[in-house]
Amino acid sequence: MSTNVIDTIIDCDIHQRLSSPANLFPYLSSARRRDIEAYGLRFPSVGHLNGGDRGYRHDSWPGGGEMVGSDLELMQQQLLDAYPIEYGILLGQEIRPVGTLPDVDYAADLSRAYNEWMIEHWLEQDDRLRGVLIIPTQSPSRSVEEIDRFAAREDIVGVLVANGSQHPYGNRIYDPIYEACARHSLPLVLHTGGEGTGINGTPTPAGHPSYYVEHRQSRPMGYMAHLASMVFEGLFERFPDLNVVFVEGGYTWLPTYLWRLDADWKGLRSQTPWVVKAPSEYILEHCTFTSQPMELPSPQSQLMTVFEWADASNTLMFASDYPHWDFDSPELSLPKMPPEMARNVFSETARRVFKLPSRVLATA
Amino acid sequence: MSTNVIDTIIDCDIHQRLSSPANLFPYLSSARRRDIEAYGLRFPSVGHLNGGDRGYRHDSWPGGGEMVGSDLELMQQQLLDAYPIEYGILLGQEIRPVGTLPDVDYAADLSRAYNEWMIEHWLEQDDRLRGVLIIPTQSPSRSVEEIDRFAAREDIVGVLVANGSQHPYGNRIYDPIYEACARHSLPLVLHTGGEGTGINGTPTPAGHPSYYVEHRQSRPMGYMAHLASMVFEGLFERFPDLNVVFVEGGYTWLPTYLWRLDADWKGLRSQTPWVVKAPSEYILEHCTFTSQPMELPSPQSQLMTVFEWADASNTLMFASDYPHWDFDSPELSLPKMPPEMARNVFSETARRVFKLPSRVLATA
Repeated sequence: MSTNVIDTIIDCDIHQRLSSPANLFPYLSSARRRDIEAYGLRFPSVGHLNGGDRGYRHDSWPGGGEMVGSDLELMQQQLLDAYPIEYGILLGQEIRPVGTLPDVDYAADLSRAYNEWMIEHWLEQDDRLRGVLIIPTQSPSRSVEEIDRFAAREDIVGVLVANGSQHPYGNRIYDPIYEACARHSLPLVLHTGGEGTGINGTPTPAGHPSYYVEHRQSRPMGYMAHLASMVFEGLFERFPDLNVVFVEGGYTWLPTYLWRLDADWKGLRSQTPWVVKAPSEYILEHCTFTSQPMELPSPQSQLMTVFEWADASNTLMFASDYPHWDFDSPELSLPKMPPEMARNVFSETARRVFKLPSRVLATA
Repeated sequence: MSTNVIDTIIDCDIHQRLSSPANLFPYLSSARRRDIEAYGLRFPSVGHLNGGDRGYRHDSWPGGGEMVGSDLELMQQQLLDAYPIEYGILLGQEIRPVGTLPDVDYAADLSRAYNEWMIEHWLEQDDRLRGVLIIPTQSPSRSVEEIDRFAAREDIVGVLVANGSQHPYGNRIYDPIYEACARHSLPLVLHTGGEGTGINGTPTPAGHPSYYVEHRQSRPMGYMAHLASMVFEGLFERFPDLNVVFVEGGYTWLPTYLWRLDADWKGLRSQTPWVVKAPSEYILEHCTFTSQPMELPSPQSQLMTVFEWADASNTLMFASDYPHWDFDSPELSLPKMPPEMARNVFSETARRVFKLPSRVLATA
């Protein structure tokens, strides 16, 4: 694709990994350590493949048998120093679908251990990095404890949940989480994962697909369900300052989905009278979406048409998904945009949503 | 919307109903009759509301406490004689989600009874009407029995399954059904329903939504899952003449979904090497979609842009959804299209897919 002129980037989706579950041991009880040594982390899976080299860029695996994504120096070399990254937001990997675990106390302990490990081993090691807190969504009250524990830190910029869930996130059982987000002015960040695993239901209305390439299609389905739930449960009426970020679930489906929601709302609005505006108004005001992996039509001009329909200047934020195999380069992954749209997509919309102060780049 | 000039219509989605479960008794064993008298039809439900008057147009309820959709004369007056309907395809109502029932023998008996009732009480009463066969998808072999029993009839034009299902329909356990479709040159017809009910999984990757307006959004999710499954399981390679019709699940999501499928296929095609063409090629060749309920952007010109991207001249077919509350009038529901596109949408694409001979209208 054509290159945009970019002098500063906020990368909204970077994945750092544990080099081993033992990284979390300093933050866990001896009983938890014993269980993890005996059983591993016990994260449920459907059993699909992934792409690239075990899900990652071939060149992002450090030598010597080290775990991909666990090496800050390699991340600096391949991403943070390679592009003008003003801020990079860490979304973790192994612990993120913690809401799929049946044992809520274990989920809460893992969340806290992950958050402490992220702060000590990543956020405090490179001042370009920012983190979002993992919470045990099975228990809104335990989730609030985690948010209140860390949210005052300047390097914590959001609250992270998985796309796959037991309930759509507009459900009012989650209101304590949103009250905590409001108290600390933090956005909710949804990342793909957990669709159809553990205590969650099936990933599609047609059960489980056979292949990873199909499973990826449940990402927008989950985001569609969460968006509809947030609108029709009145979430944005109850929390008028809330921002919600949808990561890695596609973007070009948004405009026609807004048409659909608006049409259905018009025909059925008497059933949810607290929804006083068209769904598209709530969503375009409160929700943003990250760019990777961007759908690629031919001709590319169709993509710019959709960007205009979806108000990309205010709803789209760049993400690289480093070090995953389908990494999007800031230079190559997006079509040539008008300068103001490009500036918003690459930095200014994320700056607003994550409340990140402007600063001179330390490296570029 | 602007009016298209239409001189003949094939309406791909008309709902006729039982006036009572007792309508099926002549086609069921005495044991089944006893159970239905004692327990009713026992169709599982999530418990959502619907729109309009109990799901239907206010004016489509016959007087005297009669069941909506059960009166052929009223259907003739409000639909078949009111517009130039060359053919109208009946998709039933109560029995359609038969695949959600736990007891496969009961599901098979109900399917057969419905098909016999439809033929005797509807198809043989008005020669504009055509029917699609309900099958018990829990059992592919029992489904084949039903198809082989009725498929030779000229007034049977397809095989009907519900969107909500235990497995996506590309799964090879369904191949016997496709072999029967191929043997009789019948398309598979998917209609919304059964999402998250009975033996099926949850309707979204985020569980069950609270309201009917949200539940409606799981319709395109199911169709997306079935499309991906059909492509990546190689269904259209195994059955190169198969046509599949997607009814009442929206249409404008199609082009950007094809972009997404094509991009994911490019990155992951080594995992499904039997998929030798881009997903969009298979889908645009084998799949058609009905128009109702059409998403309505403002300005309308956006809808025509999507129609062009989705090759509406070859993939879109008119449906009224009579007598449901969100009925689409042939005159008012679609934007002004170029004459050839309008002709294809209102009749010629359905004529090709359902193999309906041209004829002079009996009434107009």
